[in-house]
Amino acid sequence: MRLTLAFVSVAAATFALSSPAAAEEGMWTFDAVPTDAIKAAYGWAPDQKWLDHTRAAAVRLTGGCSASFVSNEGLILTNHHCVVGCLQNLSSADSDLVAGGFNAADRARELKCPGQQAEVVTAITDVTGSIRAAIGSLTGEALVKARDARIAEIESAECPDRDTTRCQVVTLFGGGQYKLYKYRKYSDVRIAWAPEFQAAFFGGDPDNFNFPRYAMDAAFLRAYENGKPAATPAHLKWNPRAPQEGEITFVVGNPGSTQRLLTETQRAFQRTERLPLTLLLLSEYRGRLIASMDESPEKAREGADELFGIENSFKALSGQFRALNDPAFTAQMAAAEAELREKVRGNAEIGDPWSEIDAAMAKRRDTYLDSVFLERGPASFSTLAGYAQTLVRAAEERAKPNSERLPGFTDSALPLTEKRLTDPVPTYPWLEELAVAFWASKAREYLGTDNDDIKALLGKESPEALAKRLVTGTRLADPAYRQQLWDGGAAAIAASDDPMIRFFARLDPRSREIKAAFDRDYDAPVTAAQARLAKARFAAYGDALYPDATFTLRLSYGQVKGWTERGKPVPAMTRIGGTYDRATGQLPYKLAEAFVTAESRIDKNGVYDFVTTNDIIGGNSGSPVIARDGSVIGTAFDGNIHSLGGNFGYDGTLNRTVAVSTAAIQQALDVIWPAPALAAELKGGKRR
Amino acid sequence: MRLTLAFVSVAAATFALSSPAAAEEGMWTFDAVPTDAIKAAYGWAPDQKWLDHTRAAAVRLTGGCSASFVSNEGLILTNHHCVVGCLQNLSSADSDLVAGGFNAADRARELKCPGQQAEVVTAITDVTGSIRAAIGSLTGEALVKARDARIAEIESAECPDRDTTRCQVVTLFGGGQYKLYKYRKYSDVRIAWAPEFQAAFFGGDPDNFNFPRYAMDAAFLRAYENGKPAATPAHLKWNPRAPQEGEITFVVGNPGSTQRLLTETQRAFQRTERLPLTLLLLSEYRGRLIASMDESPEKAREGADELFGIENSFKALSGQFRALNDPAFTAQMAAAEAELREKVRGNAEIGDPWSEIDAAMAKRRDTYLDSVFLERGPASFSTLAGYAQTLVRAAEERAKPNSERLPGFTDSALPLTEKRLTDPVPTYPWLEELAVAFWASKAREYLGTDNDDIKALLGKESPEALAKRLVTGTRLADPAYRQQLWDGGAAAIAASDDPMIRFFARLDPRSREIKAAFDRDYDAPVTAAQARLAKARFAAYGDALYPDATFTLRLSYGQVKGWTERGKPVPAMTRIGGTYDRATGQLPYKLAEAFVTAESRIDKNGVYDFVTTNDIIGGNSGSPVIARDGSVIGTAFDGNIHSLGGNFGYDGTLNRTVAVSTAAIQQALDVIWPAPALAAELKGGKRR
Repeated sequence: MRLTLAFVSVAAATFALSSPAAAEEGMWTFDAVPTDAIKAAYGWAPDQKWLDHTRAAAVRLTGGCSASFVSNEGLILTNHHCVVGCLQNLSSADSDLVAGGFNAADRARELKCPGQQAEVVTAITDVTGSIRAAIGSLTGEALVKARDARIAEIESAECPDRDTTRCQVVTLFGGGQYKLYKYRKYSDVRIAWAPEFQAAFFGGDPDNFNFPRYAMDAAFLRAYENGKPAATPAHLKWNPRAPQEGEITFVVGNPGSTQRLLTETQRAFQRTERLPLTLLLLSEYRGRLIASMDESPEKAREGADELFGIENSFKALSGQFRALNDPAFTAQMAAAEAELREKVRGNAEIGDPWSEIDAAMAKRRDTYLDSVFLERGPASFSTLAGYAQTLVRAAEERAKPNSERLPGFTDSALPLTEKRLTDPVPTYPWLEELAVAFWASKAREYLGTDNDDIKALLGKESPEALAKRLVTGTRLADPAYRQQLWDGGAAAIAASDDPMIRFFARLDPRSREIKAAFDRDYDAPVTAAQARLAKARFAAYGDALYPDATFTLRLSYGQVKGWTERGKPVPAMTRIGGTYDRATGQLPYKLAEAFVTAESRIDKNGVYDFVTTNDIIGGNSGSPVIARDGSVIGTAFDGNIHSLGGNFGYDGTLNRTVAVSTAAIQQALDVIWPAPALAAELKGGKRR
Repeated sequence: MRLTLAFVSVAAATFALSSPAAAEEGMWTFDAVPTDAIKAAYGWAPDQKWLDHTRAAAVRLTGGCSASFVSNEGLILTNHHCVVGCLQNLSSADSDLVAGGFNAADRARELKCPGQQAEVVTAITDVTGSIRAAIGSLTGEALVKARDARIAEIESAECPDRDTTRCQVVTLFGGGQYKLYKYRKYSDVRIAWAPEFQAAFFGGDPDNFNFPRYAMDAAFLRAYENGKPAATPAHLKWNPRAPQEGEITFVVGNPGSTQRLLTETQRAFQRTERLPLTLLLLSEYRGRLIASMDESPEKAREGADELFGIENSFKALSGQFRALNDPAFTAQMAAAEAELREKVRGNAEIGDPWSEIDAAMAKRRDTYLDSVFLERGPASFSTLAGYAQTLVRAAEERAKPNSERLPGFTDSALPLTEKRLTDPVPTYPWLEELAVAFWASKAREYLGTDNDDIKALLGKESPEALAKRLVTGTRLADPAYRQQLWDGGAAAIAASDDPMIRFFARLDPRSREIKAAFDRDYDAPVTAAQARLAKARFAAYGDALYPDATFTLRLSYGQVKGWTERGKPVPAMTRIGGTYDRATGQLPYKLAEAFVTAESRIDKNGVYDFVTTNDIIGGNSGSPVIARDGSVIGTAFDGNIHSLGGNFGYDGTLNRTVAVSTAAIQQALDVIWPAPALAAELKGGKRR
């Protein structure tokens, strides 16, 4: 499971829980963990010391994953699929680190992952009052500008040291609360160990979001500072014992985005517009990619990470679409909305935020296709186009005062933006061309040949000709050229004859116009309405509420537990030996090489993967699964098929987190892809 | 516009109009043309002689199109896109009849289209009583068997001469009426003239279902008998004048399928299950095809017809999906259902057919994926697999008495089945492999790796390995081998070691089981319920109703008329000169060669394409557009984007038929791709 593509996540305001959370439901912020409810359910709950320690060991990976420190020398446990992009970036035709895995013989051979940054929360502060004061009684675009300006100011002022800290103001309850998260950041993150792809992703797309499962979806990174392993006294104790059925488990990580409190109108938009369109685009793109990768082993290797991302998003969004077309599921949500409306009826302070959202949504429908196809343009699909858009925007934004810049270009955001832009990453011309041509052909299909924007952007070129010209002509694959344009600012961009830069220079004004219209017509009125909806919820249900996921640190509690699928019990865990039974000799059910060579040394009865009732979502990938004693017993890497409706609501009878056990990882380190130094480091990790 | 793929049209019971038809709405059977309504709207209506003559000149093409005789020597006017498959089948790497067009210098050089058959209705008889008597009080599978047996008996008895006649019993009003259609058939149909593809399909997929339009989507075939042009004294007068705004027009053809009287439950199934699944499958298949065709000019040529079919189906079904997600559109339908329920409330003879359909639909949902992926298996996508399925089934069915056979294998259906099976058609191994692998990968994705059918069919093979083995190993590309297996019957099938045959021999029992479950659990109860729903409609609204489309001959009336699109008027016709303004030099907006070379001779002010308010749907492609005097002034080839909701209901303010004018075709024959003999033949066509 991964965060969905940037392209996929266009818009959709997020929000909080309507009626009070059911047992085990909830992605709780660390400053509002429901210890009473946990104690009521399990007879025990973590104390503040437990929480503080866990929080300090929890790592956010800026690529869209979660992780945790597991030694006092910066060792990070996460999922293989969270590092597969790094492995691919470090691979070549001669050395395929994805297929073969990676096992650094010593620390000197650990390799830096381009674009990767690790972050640890050090403080959470409520800044709601300050932001509310800045908004005052503003509306429309002015509201959005004032809010974003104050956020930029706070973030800049609170984290003056931009080399080791990062500040982020997070909007919770859709504007009901604003919290400042302060992070310790590590910009040098290296890969230490990863299994063979065929073990990590055994079962491939068919088994994704399914269980029983036989996947070694785990890897180790290491945070460095000043060229040395970072000192991380706060880390989780490595605990390679098997999980026990029914034991309490905590998943601590960064769920990316949920939409549990959309209004009926917003859900209808998801069901009838956003999800179908996105799924159709992903389907065709997936098809183009699969057929292109079939042309040669190089293309198969080069396109692999892109394909996994597409297939993962497709499956996740399919699950959302199914959930929103399930009458039983949606009836619950409709009932919750009706109940809340009833509870606050006649409350003048609340008014009718639902109708305000309806009105904003009507406008949103009119400009939705513009947002999808023109706001990011080919940058939705192509890496090189993404560089061009960043460079063109940065040139204009960086010339402005901090408080007037677009969110990605404020002082606090710039370091990561620059790192992502300039870190060397291989790009593949065929894949870039495919991406740009796909964007152009779909933009023309959906907006129409006679659309003014399409005419202006395509001129007399076909999608394929445009793609060829931009990709063949651009120098943006060269990190030095990107750095040069970044450093050169507006003058360098104006002077550049790079065709991709010129394309985005033409698109950017229109793209900003679309964003401005979205801010004015949707974001502003919906922000105002949602703040009152939040008030309504707190009034109706008290403060035992958790906000929608925002890719910030959350805690979820639950237990090791299977479920019943159409009358058949699904056991809570699998054994490593099951891999051999499931193997067919053909992808994606082909055994990893080490599974063949090490078969006699593997304890086949050892636990492999397991499921828990924790409430998680994409972005939680890599999260530690933590036992009552604070030790780590697994790393969450997926949800079952029922977890996909979790975007809209949690169903504890069916929704399950899927994790790989530390017991299995220990076997991997001991006998499958032996890494004695790592094993020793894990064993010697400082106990709390 | 074409009939959707066989694969796409899985199930969905069809039905008739709920409330009385609005002006210009309706696809009327020739035995129930609403002359009073036409007269009321236009002050004139066709008499019986007009209708008889037109019916005798109307041609059905078994590939899924409509057409008309336009000379007394068997000359047939239809669309280019109805013959593009033929052109592709007759092409080779050296001679690309799709790209270059076809222009037979004389009749001896007209070439036979594989698989094509032309049919003309000669009689329509009501057989409702006979079928109802056979059904009696039967239910479930017995009902379906009895009904199909009686149909087979009638068809066999009424058309003993199977060389020149064909009988088909058509189910109208979902079982409210059964009519026997008797056809004169022509099994030797040859291509006489077709323009360059780039003129016929100018604007390609982006312009498909749009208007203004600049497409020469016309072609001429010729029916032969005994090796000579068929004598066709009944034909339409060729009338190359421009259409006049507001003039009455008749479209006479074979609309394939509409679903205008689904119940709310059935529409919900379309919206939440069938359409999304089908669209997603088409999208990915389209993507795979596009990328594969990009590999070489040969593949681009060989895959073209398949791609057009996919894109056309995709767009048509997208329009249906949009319509069913349009609250205004669906509210009308919900209101119509509510009104009918109210009108027949308490009528014991009618009962509650809606609830019966609900119950059947609940079962249908459970087995829907089995139907989609296992009933036809890879035959949904692959031509060779289709041959295998036909051969395996035919071997078993032909051994049974006529009345016990599956519908495609009754005496009356066998000649066309055999013709389609044995006519020589080129197949392309890469495309066949792509098709089989796609089927296998999607079947596994949707049914699951652990599904018993998937385990049995795939074993330890990957989808790609299975596809390679079946396609590389089969001899079914050879028409002689197909004929040999057909002639050899069950013994030959049992003895064959052809891997594709063996695959279907394994699948077929399961496939029959799925069909039997569909018959028992859905078709039978729904047939019974729909017969009572029909009764309810006749009781409530009298007999001014037309049945849902069934790919049988219908008449639609309307007028030449533009529409208003978001406040802007869309004119009713385009001029040939507009092509030059729209051309970009790049596909799909590249001018046909003859448009370049003949530019000075073309009357650019001449009418090209035009729109009318006629109510048509896929299958109507190639239908003549007929003026009041019975002459042909165009051939319908498309609908506008609003026509796509026409599957569920007709909206006269927006729904438009798109036709190419005879005026434009005359220019084509005179100066663009000159065909003086054809032009003379059209001019000399016997006048009525």
